Parts: sequence; structure tokens; C-alpha cells
Amino acid sequence: MASETELQKVIGGLLTIFRKYAKEDGNAWTLSRAEAKNLLVNELPGLIENPNDSAEVKKVVDNLDENKDNKITFVEFTELVMKLSFYRFFWGSV
Amino acid sequence: MASETELQKVIGGLLTIFRKYAKEDGNAWTLSRAEAKNLLVNELPGLIENPNDSAEVKKVVDNLDENKDNKITFVEFTELVMKLSFYRFFWGSV
Repeated sequence: MASETELQKVIGGLLTIFRKYAKEDGNAWTLSRAEAKNLLVNELPGLIENPNDSAEVKKVVDNLDENKDNKITFVEFTELVMKLSFYRFFWGSV
Repeated sequence: MASETELQKVIGGLLTIFRKYAKEDGNAWTLSRAEAKNLLVNELPGLIENPNDSAEVKKVVDNLDENKDNKITFVEFTELVMKLSFYRFFWGSV
């Protein structure tokens, strides 16, 4: 099989990262709120200013959980990734 | 500066790949149709079955060019990346 292209590696990376955190509770299809916090704190240092501030954590995770089912789906995760990539592309931050 | 996390590398990778192809015509903010074809053929082998089939190429690039301005923006590019990552996450293909 031909080696992966850079874009295929990026796509694979999205899956790998999501599953790394989503599998902790045995269900790798979605992130629980705790898994989502863990992903954000580890992968996006600075997005949550004070990880010990439960109100701030709740607000950030609530923003991710678009359909309010207390689960963060892969689709909801990629929405965040896209927004962050726009910030970085258009304004050079994140 | 702390080293990048895996997710930050993925986000950076999206920008790097887009700009690698977008800059060919001197304007790295958007992909021309030719640049978009070049990106697709090189980064997503198989998405376009026959790169020499201009009708097929036109159809695939038209699908990308959501606002029909003959330019593919970074936002339109990330829409494609997201769809491909869903296919891979939910059905294991691409």
C-alpha cells in the first residue's frame, strides 16, 4: 500500500487524537464531558485558562456539545478543530 | 515556546498543505481551480479517478467551490477535509 500523503496523515491524526481520549470509558465513539476536558487541557493548552475552574470548564465543554446530549461526537470535535484552524489561518493565533 | 501538541500539529498541517498549493499563483489565500486539482491529485490519490478526464475534474472541483467564485477558500477546503474524516471515522474509508 502506498505511503500516506500529508493530508491523509492529517485526517488520520484527527481520528487518532479523538479516539485516544474517547476510548477511556470503553466507548471510543464519543467523548464524555470528562474525556472532552482531558482532550482540551492536553491538546489545546490555553483554550481553558484555568482547568480547575469548573464553571469555565463547563462553559467550554457546553460550547462543544452542540446538541446538548452530554456527549461530544466526532463531528462536534471536528467543528472545534475547524474553528481553531480558521483562527490560525486568518489571524495566526491558537 | 512549548512544543506543539498532536492536535496543534494537525491544525498546522491543514494550513501548511493548503498554502503549499495555494501559493503557486502568488496568492496563498485561495486555491485556483488548477491549484485545487493539483492538491486533490497529489494529496488525495483516488478521489479523482482519472485526473486527465476534465469533466470529472470539473465536477469534483465544482463540488468544492461552494460559492461558485472559481476560487477554493480555506473554509471550503476544510469542509472537504471534514467530510473525508467522517467517512474514515464512521466507515473506515479514504
